[in-house]
Amino acid sequence: MKNNNAVRDMTMLMDLYEMTMSMGYFQSGMADQIVYFDMFFRRTPDGGAMAIAAGLEQLIEFIENMKFEESDIDYLRSVGIHDEKFLDYVRNFQFKGDIWAVEEGTPVFPREPLVTVRANVIEAQLIETTLLVLINHQSLIATKSNRLVRAAQDIPIVEFGARRAQGADAAYLGARAAYIGGCAGTSNLMAGRDFGVPVFGTMAHSWIQLFDDEYEAFKAYATSYPASTALLVDTYNTLQSGIPNAIRVFDEVVVPSGHRPLSIRLDSGDLAYLSKKARVMLDEAGYEDVKIMASNAIEEETIKALRDQDAEIDIFGIGEKLITASSDAVFGGVYKLVAVEHEDGTIEPKIKISENVEKITNPHFKDLYRLYDKKTGKALADLMTIHGEKIDTSQPYELFDPVYTWKKTVIEEFEAKPLLVPIFKGGKRVYPKKTIEEIRAYREEEEARLWDGVKRIVHPHKYFVDLSLPLWKVKNDMLTGHADRVK
Amino acid sequence: MKNNNAVRDMTMLMDLYEMTMSMGYFQSGMADQIVYFDMFFRRTPDGGAMAIAAGLEQLIEFIENMKFEESDIDYLRSVGIHDEKFLDYVRNFQFKGDIWAVEEGTPVFPREPLVTVRANVIEAQLIETTLLVLINHQSLIATKSNRLVRAAQDIPIVEFGARRAQGADAAYLGARAAYIGGCAGTSNLMAGRDFGVPVFGTMAHSWIQLFDDEYEAFKAYATSYPASTALLVDTYNTLQSGIPNAIRVFDEVVVPSGHRPLSIRLDSGDLAYLSKKARVMLDEAGYEDVKIMASNAIEEETIKALRDQDAEIDIFGIGEKLITASSDAVFGGVYKLVAVEHEDGTIEPKIKISENVEKITNPHFKDLYRLYDKKTGKALADLMTIHGEKIDTSQPYELFDPVYTWKKTVIEEFEAKPLLVPIFKGGKRVYPKKTIEEIRAYREEEEARLWDGVKRIVHPHKYFVDLSLPLWKVKNDMLTGHADRVK
Repeated sequence: MKNNNAVRDMTMLMDLYEMTMSMGYFQSGMADQIVYFDMFFRRTPDGGAMAIAAGLEQLIEFIENMKFEESDIDYLRSVGIHDEKFLDYVRNFQFKGDIWAVEEGTPVFPREPLVTVRANVIEAQLIETTLLVLINHQSLIATKSNRLVRAAQDIPIVEFGARRAQGADAAYLGARAAYIGGCAGTSNLMAGRDFGVPVFGTMAHSWIQLFDDEYEAFKAYATSYPASTALLVDTYNTLQSGIPNAIRVFDEVVVPSGHRPLSIRLDSGDLAYLSKKARVMLDEAGYEDVKIMASNAIEEETIKALRDQDAEIDIFGIGEKLITASSDAVFGGVYKLVAVEHEDGTIEPKIKISENVEKITNPHFKDLYRLYDKKTGKALADLMTIHGEKIDTSQPYELFDPVYTWKKTVIEEFEAKPLLVPIFKGGKRVYPKKTIEEIRAYREEEEARLWDGVKRIVHPHKYFVDLSLPLWKVKNDMLTGHADRVK
Repeated sequence: MKNNNAVRDMTMLMDLYEMTMSMGYFQSGMADQIVYFDMFFRRTPDGGAMAIAAGLEQLIEFIENMKFEESDIDYLRSVGIHDEKFLDYVRNFQFKGDIWAVEEGTPVFPREPLVTVRANVIEAQLIETTLLVLINHQSLIATKSNRLVRAAQDIPIVEFGARRAQGADAAYLGARAAYIGGCAGTSNLMAGRDFGVPVFGTMAHSWIQLFDDEYEAFKAYATSYPASTALLVDTYNTLQSGIPNAIRVFDEVVVPSGHRPLSIRLDSGDLAYLSKKARVMLDEAGYEDVKIMASNAIEEETIKALRDQDAEIDIFGIGEKLITASSDAVFGGVYKLVAVEHEDGTIEPKIKISENVEKITNPHFKDLYRLYDKKTGKALADLMTIHGEKIDTSQPYELFDPVYTWKKTVIEEFEAKPLLVPIFKGGKRVYPKKTIEEIRAYREEEEARLWDGVKRIVHPHKYFVDLSLPLWKVKNDMLTGHADRVK
């Protein structure tokens, strides 16, 4: 059975406990209880200040296509813990709730909601696992990509990691996320086909090994691709054989065909030394315009070191370290209850208390704003408020630290932009589909509005995600009330 | 469009260069050139000696379903580097080659082939990327799972990581691989449904928060699940509230319903201290049979430390650190040309030379054997031979180190079992589908035949993967020949 281009059915990707709790709510008469859940993360990977949100489009598609098939029901029955009444409920299940989310490409910070769900408690539970895996994964890769791109500055990076990805989705959606984060493209054709990510590729060492010699191999490649000749020069000896053979083929095949060669690729050895030597050899042969691409275990630190040593690298190809974010391979997004809505429409905030103050949640149905300084246009802080609160930007405004609640900041002359936008209303998608170019451009714009200190790769400046006074009061009262209770 | 239970189309998951090289071969008149590629890895993750091979069944399904749709052809045309003659070839593409592979669940070692492909060069290239991603990913997770299971010894581990996985496949196939590696089950329903992995689940903290108090929450759960009551006891205060409330509900709801409660789960705090206290409290209340499950950032080291401190833990739940293998998140499988077959049927070995001796490939179309000592039944070494070589097990046999070619070992009284089994012949699957229980049992058997030193988590004993004399000679001649050439 083939399903080319079909949306993948991820309805059953969930943890069993989502289903178990759902039947519990169903049997306890709580199936219609409206709840609010926030998805947020507590720590940016790799010690960074900001992450890049991604994965929303796949979350939307998942929810729109969520439906339990008869075979799913049969399987649940075979697990032996769900009764027929509940299985009927599951059979007719459809998500009918509301969702708000930060747009893909938004630079985001710990402890602020990336997604807020308002739905009945069963709907809210049954989407949890897949919501988390989709947002966590793509945000992880977009964030890693963005770090690498910031380290590389003006040198473009191409994502090359499919073969080392953690499964097909990790390759496919990872390539999408890497492009959102700032990569210039991918080697992955499926991501090219479905998302329009620009695709790049050269050759493997096996290409060269299959010809009688390197020169013949290069010549055959250039004959097939005179307009896009990109040659891998390290199979035998980069400086003594690879580059001289490449130049010979540029001279004999590419230029006579009326084209300019694209690039050479270095995949081993001392990339700083080899790239500088290669640059001189190419320049002396009249190929100042031919780019040098470097691949092989590239990370932020390698990029910095290569830049410091004036390596002559024009493009980086990055594989496993990008596509698995192996330096810090988990984006720890969580999904926490923040409020319940009573039948009369009143909203009761909920809080998760923890011994670890960093793990205490920010309660309530909230709005999230990014506050920009009017003079510089730069972002000052993010602000969580109770949903519907008005912010008077004409007055000095007081912000409260969500953890160390005695810390306050006053800002003036600012603009407030809401970051959470409506995605679903009553189960219907209300958010337009964005092209990947729009998402990438939005990321670029928003990134430009952050101070450099926040974007620093190592020991970045802390960016504040604060609470409004009304929200601060709610949280403080709940913490104090709890402290009283456990006396 | 829904595709429940459909095999996923991964035809286009490949890197662009597979397609680029293929057109190059096509245009160079090499489309019918038969080649041999080996897939192998060079380093076991986390400093282990052995890895666990997994992902073969998904590789088989991928190859059986590989087909380029018209929309794929349209996309390739839009990339602008492939001509119509070649696109016609792609349109009719089908894999018609032969594949051998080690069976899923086999403990495997660096530099030995896990998969050998014999096919025309275009077939061999077009399956490369997906072959690698499928085997790399599941072998990574099966290996990590196996390490955790070895660390936990007789304490079962349940895989809980879906939400932190790197995409849907990482969650789904990761759960499969974790079970092959030795986990007792998963929380993931899709893996339960499709592979028959046993599923487990309890409740989230939000369940408890949605009731008036913890006691009410536990009571509601036990009422829905009297036969499988498993309670999360750390929402407020594990010892003062969680366990007393659990015991009360066991007494009031579970036991009167004629059942025994299953377990409690600890998800925070000092798991050694809390589990010992919990054990005493449960025992004193007559619940000696109720299990204590622990989750929260569990790794090999944590497990060892908890065992050393006599923690009373009966089950571990492991999430992100298992499903992403975050301690070493890449399984670095590669796919290298090892031989070409001429029209007269002669096979010419190929080698990839590298400055780094560990990166030099083992040339030729090979067989792979595991050699067992007849007395102990334990594995002595793995042996690569030229394909078709006979091994006389009645005589002392000499093995040669593939890297340090002066190192030899002689063994006697041994049995030789071929590890590479036929998977495809002329494009047809010839290998039966195994159940996950068969795969898991095979892993267990083969693991039992390895010496403990090889299975040690930290600083394991090196296991030898050696060459036969004929293969050693071929390799040595090629290296010497190369050394002569570059003088």
